[in-house]
Amino acid sequence: MGEYLRDSELDAIVAVSLENVYYLSGVPILTQRMIPTRLAFAIRRADDSSTIVVCSIEEAQVRAESWITDIRCYTEFADSPVAVLADALRDLGLARGRIGLELTTLGQTYYAELARLLPDAALVDGTDVLDRRRMVKTEDERELLRRGAAATERAIHDAFAGARIGDTEATIAERMERGLRDQGADGVAFTVLAAGPNAKMAHPSPGAQQLDASSVLRTDFGGYFGARHAGYMSDLARTAIIGTATAEQKDVYRRLFEVHQLTLAAVRPGARACDVFEACRRGFEERGLPFRMPHVGHGIGVSVHELPMLNPGTTQELRPGMVLAVEPITHTADGIFHVEDMVEVTSDGARLLSDASRWAALPEVG
Amino acid sequence: MGEYLRDSELDAIVAVSLENVYYLSGVPILTQRMIPTRLAFAIRRADDSSTIVVCSIEEAQVRAESWITDIRCYTEFADSPVAVLADALRDLGLARGRIGLELTTLGQTYYAELARLLPDAALVDGTDVLDRRRMVKTEDERELLRRGAAATERAIHDAFAGARIGDTEATIAERMERGLRDQGADGVAFTVLAAGPNAKMAHPSPGAQQLDASSVLRTDFGGYFGARHAGYMSDLARTAIIGTATAEQKDVYRRLFEVHQLTLAAVRPGARACDVFEACRRGFEERGLPFRMPHVGHGIGVSVHELPMLNPGTTQELRPGMVLAVEPITHTADGIFHVEDMVEVTSDGARLLSDASRWAALPEVG
Repeated sequence: MGEYLRDSELDAIVAVSLENVYYLSGVPILTQRMIPTRLAFAIRRADDSSTIVVCSIEEAQVRAESWITDIRCYTEFADSPVAVLADALRDLGLARGRIGLELTTLGQTYYAELARLLPDAALVDGTDVLDRRRMVKTEDERELLRRGAAATERAIHDAFAGARIGDTEATIAERMERGLRDQGADGVAFTVLAAGPNAKMAHPSPGAQQLDASSVLRTDFGGYFGARHAGYMSDLARTAIIGTATAEQKDVYRRLFEVHQLTLAAVRPGARACDVFEACRRGFEERGLPFRMPHVGHGIGVSVHELPMLNPGTTQELRPGMVLAVEPITHTADGIFHVEDMVEVTSDGARLLSDASRWAALPEVG
Repeated sequence: MGEYLRDSELDAIVAVSLENVYYLSGVPILTQRMIPTRLAFAIRRADDSSTIVVCSIEEAQVRAESWITDIRCYTEFADSPVAVLADALRDLGLARGRIGLELTTLGQTYYAELARLLPDAALVDGTDVLDRRRMVKTEDERELLRRGAAATERAIHDAFAGARIGDTEATIAERMERGLRDQGADGVAFTVLAAGPNAKMAHPSPGAQQLDASSVLRTDFGGYFGARHAGYMSDLARTAIIGTATAEQKDVYRRLFEVHQLTLAAVRPGARACDVFEACRRGFEERGLPFRMPHVGHGIGVSVHELPMLNPGTTQELRPGMVLAVEPITHTADGIFHVEDMVEVTSDGARLLSDASRWAALPEVG
C-alpha cells in the first residue's frame, strides 16, 4: 500500500467503507453495514503503519481479529467518531498532511466536520488509490476467490439439479444458500433467483413463485469467503429452463454461450479491459443478439464489483493476479438469459475458476 | 411525509440510503448495498408526489414493486446518476427549492457534484426529517415488526433448545437462520453468535468454536420481514449457559433480568427516552452491576437502530405506535450477558412483542 500512497503523493489513506476497513485491517465490522452512524476508520500511512478508529463496543473484536495494534476508540453518543479520527490523524503527525479518504463513501456531514477540525490538512479523494491497490490479488486472496467460485458453482448446480416443477423460487434459493454454506462459505452475500415472469427483472428476490413448465429459471448468486460479514466474494450466474426448452430458447442460449466463451478467451495479460468488452459486443453483433450491456464483467474481490470494470471506457491492461467475473446477458421474451463465470488472469493466459463447461447447452431441469 | 416536509420548510426530500429509498418507494434495491456506485434516489415532494431515480438495470423491478410511477433511469458508466437526479429535481420545479438530503449517507463527492449542478437550490441535511417520520409506525409496519419479533424469538428458542455440547457456533447459527426462514422471514439480517471465549466480543461471527460445558452461549439476531433485501427488522438477544450454570452466573443473570423487566416497565406513552435509560442505569446501580452502556435500547423499523435512541441525551417522549428494542448488557468474566426484547408503545402502556418470560431464569442448554 505504501508504494501506492507515495505514487499518489499521499501521506496517509483513510478507509471508510466496511470493505476497505476490512481490506486494511483484516476485521469485518458488521455494524458498519447495520448501524451506519457507528463509523469505523482504518488509517494506513505511507510508511505502511496502521491505526484503526472504532466504537468502543467493537474493541474486543478488533483486538482479537485485526493485525492493527494501534486502536483508538470512541464512546457512542458521548464522543464524535470524526473528532476521534481527527485527533488520531493529528497525533500521527498528519495535521498538515495530504490525506486520501473514500469521499464517495464518507457522508457530506462527516466530511465537513473533519475539514473543520483539520483546517490545515489536504483532504482529497483516495478512493481510486484503494481501488487500484485492490485490483491485483495476492496468492492468499486468489485462493479465497478460487474456493468461492468452485463452491458457488457446485451449490447452484446441485440446487438446479434437484429443482422440480411446483417448487417455489424460495425453496431453490434456500437449497443454494445451504449448499453454499456446506461448501465452506462464511456467509451468503446475495441471492438473486427468479422463475417465470420474475425472470425479466435484473435483481428479483426469490419468493413464492412456483416453477412452471417451460419457464426460465435464472440465478445470480454470491457468498463471502474468509470472513462472515465481509470477505472475498463469489459471483456466478446460471440460466436453465424448467421442463423442456423450445428450439428458439436453445438457439438463443447457444449463441449467448458462444459469446461467453469468446469473451473468456479475450481475457489474457496485456489485453485492455475495453478490448474484452469490445470482443463481447462484437460477439453479440455477429450472432444477431441485441446488445445493451453497460459492462460485460468486472473485477471481484472484497467488493462484488471492483476494478477493472469491463466497459468501453476502461483502458486498464489486464495483469496476472487479477480476478474477473465475465457475464454476458441477453433479454428474451421469456426472461433474461445470463451466464457468469469467474476467471483469474495468469502470466500465461487465464484460468477459469468456475465450471462453465457443464452449462454449455441450455440445461433443462425439473 | 408532506406534513413533516412543510414543518421543516422543505420543498422536497431525497432519500439516498437503501433503507430510506425502500421506505419512500416500497422497493428494496439490493445493489444499493452490493454496488455502492450504482446510486438510487427516491424524491418525495411537499405535496406527497414521488419520483425515483435508478440505474436502468433496476427499472423492471421498480415498475413491478414500487408505487412510484415517475421513474427516471440512468445508464451505468454512460450517465452520471447525480446529473440525472439534478435533471429530475430541475424538471420538478426544484432548481431553486429547499431540498433535504441524507447528507450523512450521501458521499462528499456526489454532494459536491449536485451542488455544482444546482447552484440555486438550498441543499440541506434532511436525515432528521426522515428519522422523525419513521419513529411512529403505521399498523402495517407494526404488524411486520410483531411478526418479526415472534419469529425471531422462536427461532432462537428452538436452536438453543437443540444445542448440544460439542456443537459448533456455526451449527447453532445455521439452525437459527433456517428456523427464522421457516417462521416466515424474508431474509436474515445479522447473526451474532458466540460461545466460550468469543462471548466476550460484542459482535462476533459464529465459527468453528465448539460448545464446551459451563461456557456462555450468546446470540444477537435479526431478520427482514416484508421484503427480502431490506424490510422491517427484528433484533433480539439471548444468553444461556452450556451445561450447568454456576451460582454466580445465575445470580448475575437474575439481577440483569430484573433490570430488563423494570426497563421494559418504564416504556409507556409520555415517558421520555432518557427516562427509560435512567431507569435502566439506576436498576444496574441498585443491584451492584457495573453499568457502561452508551444506550439501553433503540427504535426499530427499516433500520435496526432508529429513533428514539434510549440514551441520556434523548428527551423525545414515547408515543403510541413506536416500537423499541430494550437490551441491557453486562460484562462478566465468562462473557457478555445480554437480553433483548422488542416492545410496542400503545395508548394504554406497552405490549411485549417477544416472549421474555421463558428466559426469566438463566437457561441451561446442551
